[in-house]
Amino acid sequence: MNFSRENLDKYIDTVIKGQTSDLNVPVEACLVEGPVEPCTIVIFGATGDLTTRKLAPALYNLYLTGVMPDSLVIVGAARSEMTHIQFRERIKSAVNGMDMSKWDGFAKSLYYQAVQFNSADSFNKLSKALKTLEKDLNPKGNKIFYLAIPPSFYARTSEMLGNAGLSLESQNGNGWVRIVVEKPFGRDLKTASDLNKTLHKHFKEEQIFRIDHYLAKETVQNVLIFRFANAIFEPLWNRMFIDNVQIIAAESLGVENRAEYYEESGVLRDMFQNHMMQLLALTAMEPPSLLQPDFVQDEKSKVFRSLRPFPAHDSEEVLVLGQYASGTINGEPVAGYRQEPGVNPESVIPTFAGMKVFVDNWRWHGVPFYLVSGKRLAKKMTEIVIHFKKAPHSMFQGILGEVATANVLTLGIYPDEKVSLSFETKNPGAKVCLRSVRMDFNYRQDYAGPVLDAYEKAIMDCIQGDHMLFWRQDGVELCWSFLEPLLEDCENCADRGKRLLFYPAGSWGPEAANIFKSERS
Amino acid sequence: MNFSRENLDKYIDTVIKGQTSDLNVPVEACLVEGPVEPCTIVIFGATGDLTTRKLAPALYNLYLTGVMPDSLVIVGAARSEMTHIQFRERIKSAVNGMDMSKWDGFAKSLYYQAVQFNSADSFNKLSKALKTLEKDLNPKGNKIFYLAIPPSFYARTSEMLGNAGLSLESQNGNGWVRIVVEKPFGRDLKTASDLNKTLHKHFKEEQIFRIDHYLAKETVQNVLIFRFANAIFEPLWNRMFIDNVQIIAAESLGVENRAEYYEESGVLRDMFQNHMMQLLALTAMEPPSLLQPDFVQDEKSKVFRSLRPFPAHDSEEVLVLGQYASGTINGEPVAGYRQEPGVNPESVIPTFAGMKVFVDNWRWHGVPFYLVSGKRLAKKMTEIVIHFKKAPHSMFQGILGEVATANVLTLGIYPDEKVSLSFETKNPGAKVCLRSVRMDFNYRQDYAGPVLDAYEKAIMDCIQGDHMLFWRQDGVELCWSFLEPLLEDCENCADRGKRLLFYPAGSWGPEAANIFKSERS
Repeated sequence: MNFSRENLDKYIDTVIKGQTSDLNVPVEACLVEGPVEPCTIVIFGATGDLTTRKLAPALYNLYLTGVMPDSLVIVGAARSEMTHIQFRERIKSAVNGMDMSKWDGFAKSLYYQAVQFNSADSFNKLSKALKTLEKDLNPKGNKIFYLAIPPSFYARTSEMLGNAGLSLESQNGNGWVRIVVEKPFGRDLKTASDLNKTLHKHFKEEQIFRIDHYLAKETVQNVLIFRFANAIFEPLWNRMFIDNVQIIAAESLGVENRAEYYEESGVLRDMFQNHMMQLLALTAMEPPSLLQPDFVQDEKSKVFRSLRPFPAHDSEEVLVLGQYASGTINGEPVAGYRQEPGVNPESVIPTFAGMKVFVDNWRWHGVPFYLVSGKRLAKKMTEIVIHFKKAPHSMFQGILGEVATANVLTLGIYPDEKVSLSFETKNPGAKVCLRSVRMDFNYRQDYAGPVLDAYEKAIMDCIQGDHMLFWRQDGVELCWSFLEPLLEDCENCADRGKRLLFYPAGSWGPEAANIFKSERS
Repeated sequence: MNFSRENLDKYIDTVIKGQTSDLNVPVEACLVEGPVEPCTIVIFGATGDLTTRKLAPALYNLYLTGVMPDSLVIVGAARSEMTHIQFRERIKSAVNGMDMSKWDGFAKSLYYQAVQFNSADSFNKLSKALKTLEKDLNPKGNKIFYLAIPPSFYARTSEMLGNAGLSLESQNGNGWVRIVVEKPFGRDLKTASDLNKTLHKHFKEEQIFRIDHYLAKETVQNVLIFRFANAIFEPLWNRMFIDNVQIIAAESLGVENRAEYYEESGVLRDMFQNHMMQLLALTAMEPPSLLQPDFVQDEKSKVFRSLRPFPAHDSEEVLVLGQYASGTINGEPVAGYRQEPGVNPESVIPTFAGMKVFVDNWRWHGVPFYLVSGKRLAKKMTEIVIHFKKAPHSMFQGILGEVATANVLTLGIYPDEKVSLSFETKNPGAKVCLRSVRMDFNYRQDYAGPVLDAYEKAIMDCIQGDHMLFWRQDGVELCWSFLEPLLEDCENCADRGKRLLFYPAGSWGPEAANIFKSERS
C-alpha cells in the first residue's frame, strides 16, 4: 500500500464516493471457469420430483444465462414411454413462470429415451440413441449421467451403464464421461463402501460427482474465500480466540411426503452425515496451499480424521436427540411426527439432534463445535456462528461493573446469505456505556449480475469437471466411520425411546439442548 | 458462552429477529456519569464568537436534555457593560431555532458581569458578585472558569483569577474550582511551558481542563472502546498484521476570517500539534489497565515519547507541505490562500501537510503512520484508516492469477461516524472470483436516544471533573518537543518558499504527496 495519488484516488472512489463493491475481474468472467465443451446430459429419473423441481429449472436457467455449451443435448430417461415432444412439454411446464423468450432454442436440445433399469437391452438402446444424437452435436461424446433416482437404484444403474460400455471415456483423452449421484451415499459405512465399490467397477473416482447441493451454495463456497482471501480472520481462527462454534441448520418443514425415507434415516443420516459435516469441515479446515479440488478435499479429510470419537455408550453429554410433537408453525396447528402419514405411531426416529463435537488438532484443541439440526423448528435458517472469546481483560469494570460482550461472527447461509459481525461500541452520551452492535454484509448487496443457484452451480461444475464442491470417497467413508458408533448407540440401545426428547413443532428443539454447557465460558 | 436455552433465546432475539443493538444499561443511564453537583460556570469572552456559536447552544441543550444540575449559575463575563436582561436576550438569539419550551427556566440561571481583564479591582467585583449569586444556589462554591478568549489572554486571566482568590478550592474538599482553556496551548515548547507555569501558579493540574473538542467527539472516544472492548481487533493491531495507518482530517473551508491567527500558526500548529497527535495516540496506544483518565493519559504520553524524531534538516522524505491556490469548491470558484483578506500576498504558511511518522516501539516497529490534513480540500472528512497487510499466501493465484486485496478498517469520524471493514468475498457465479466488499456500522444506527455533541460532552465532563478527554500538560509539551524541529526546519530554512507546493482549492492536496511510498507494499 502506497500513500500515492493513485491509491488516494482509489480510496476516494471506494470509501468516500461510497462505491462499496470492487470486483477484480469483469462480472461475466466470473460465471464460468473457461470454455464450455459440448456435452450430453442424461437424466435418469427424468419424470421424477427432483427433475421437475430442481434440474429442469436449473438447466433452463443456465441456458438463459448463456453459459451452456452451444452444442448441448439433454436426454431424459425414465421407465415411461414418451415422445420427445411430450418430454419437452413436460419440462416446459416445469419451468413455467421463467423467462420463456429462449424456450424454443432450449427445447430443441431436449430428447427422451425410455429406459428399464433392469434391462441390459434397454441400456444398449440408450447407447445407440446417444450415439445418433451425438453424431453432429457432440462428436467427442462428452457425457454426464445424472442419477436423479432413489439411491437404491444407484448401484444397478451404474452397473448397467458400465455393461453397456457407456462409462468408457475415449482413449485419446477427449470425450469424458461423468456420473452424478446425490446423497445419501449409503446408510452406514458398509453400504457406503459397497456403493463406492460398485461405482468404481466401471467409473474412476474422477468420473464420479457426489453432489451435496449445500456445498454448491454461494455462501458455503464463500466460507473458504472469507477465511483465506482475508488476512485478518485467519490469525483469529483458532483456540486462542474462539470460544465455540455453532453450526445450525433449522428447518420449519416436517417430514412432508418423505416418511418412508425419513423413517429409515432420521436426522443424523439425513443432515449430519453430509451437510453438517461439510459445514464443519469448511469452518475447521487448515488452509490448502492452492484452492484446487484435491488440495481442498485433502484438508477436509484431515478434519474428519481429527474428529474426537464419540464415547461408546455414554453419549448423553455430547448428543441430544428429539422428535417433534404437534405444535404451531406460522400460527397454523401442525401434527407431530408420529401422526404424520406413513410414520410409525411409535416411531423413535429423531427429527432433531444437537451434537457437541471436538476437532482434536493443534488449532482447535478444546473448542467445542455445536452442530444443531432439526425439522419443524421455529424458522428455516442455516448459519455458521463463530463465538469469539471475551476480551481477556476488561478495563471498563472499575468504572461500570460491566463486562464487554464477546464478538460474534455469523456466516449466514439461509435465508440471508450474509456476513455479520457483532462488536462493542460506546453508546452515545457522556458516560462510557458499552453497546453491542452489528455490522452486516449481505452477499447480494451491490451485486446486479447473474447468480447461479446451488443446482446450477453443481451442474456447471460437473460440465467443467471441477470436483471442488463434491464429496470424495474417503470423505464419505470417514464421516460414516465417525457417526456409526453414535448411530449404533442410538439405534440399538435398549432405552432408545427414553433418549428421545419431544419438542413442540415451531419451537427451537428440546429444552434439554441446554446440557451443552461449555466449561470454558 | 453456553449453548443453553437462554443463550439460544438471546441469540434468536438478537440475530434472528434482527434486533441489532443491545445496550447493556438503560439509555438514560449513559448520559451522565453520576449525580451532577450544583455549579457556577463563568464564561470569559461571553460576547465572543465561540460563546455565541458553540457554548450557548451547548449549555442550553444540556439544560434541555435534563442533565444540568438543578442549581446552575451561568455568568457571562466580558469587557462591555450589559444588564443581565440584555445578556439573556443575547444568548436567546444565539440559541434561536432550538426547542424554546424550557427557555424561561434556563434564562433564570443566566447572569452578566462586566470584567476588565487588566483590572484587579474588576476581578474583585466579579468575586463578590459570584459570592452573592452562589449564596442560595451553590453554597459550596463549585466553579468553572471557561476561557473563551484569545490564547494571549489566558495567562493574564489566570493570574487575575488567582490574585482575586478565585482559584482557591474550599479547604474541606467540597467546593471545587476548574479552569477551561482551548487550544492552541502555546505556539511552541517554550510558550506552552510558560503558559503551563503561569496556570500552575494558581491552579493545580487537576483543576486545569485543556479542551480539544476533537477528543470529545463520540467516535473519537469510540476508538478506545472499539479497540479494547472487543477481543478480536487487538490481536491484529500491530506490525504483524497492519501495513500502515492513515489519519486524514480534510477541510473544505479555507482560512475564512481567521487570517490573522492562521498566518501565525499554519496547518502544523493548527491541526497537527493537537487533533492529529491525539488521533494518532488513540490509534497507537497500548491498552491501559483501567479506562481512567490518568491511566489513559499515561499511555498517550508513552506514544508521544515513542515518536521517531524527524531528521534535523532533511525532512522531505517525511513531510509534504502545501498551500492552496485558487480553485473550485462545490462548483464555485474560490480564491487562493494568498488572495484571502488579511493574508500576506507572499505568505509561505502551509495550509496542507502530509507527514510520515513512526512509533518506535515493539508493537509498531516499521509501520508508517501517514497523517494528512489541509484546508480547501475536496471534501470535509476525518477518518482513521487501518490498512492491513495482504494475506501472506494467495491460494487463488494458481487459478486466477489474482491477488486478494488487503483488508481495510475505517474508523469514520466525519461526516459519518462509522466503522467500516472491507474484505474479500466470492463473486456470485461458477468461477471463483474475488470481490472486495464492505460492511458498515453507522454509529447512530438503531440509536434513538439523545446524543451529546463535542462541546456538550466536554462541558459535562468538566462539570463532573473527568479529565479523560482533555490534554494533560506532559502531553502538550511532548507534542511540541516532537514537532518543534520540524517547525524550525520549515520556518527558518532559506528555501522555505521552495518547500511549499501549491494545490488547487478543491483538490486532494499537492501531487507530491505521493512521495510517501511504503517500502513494504
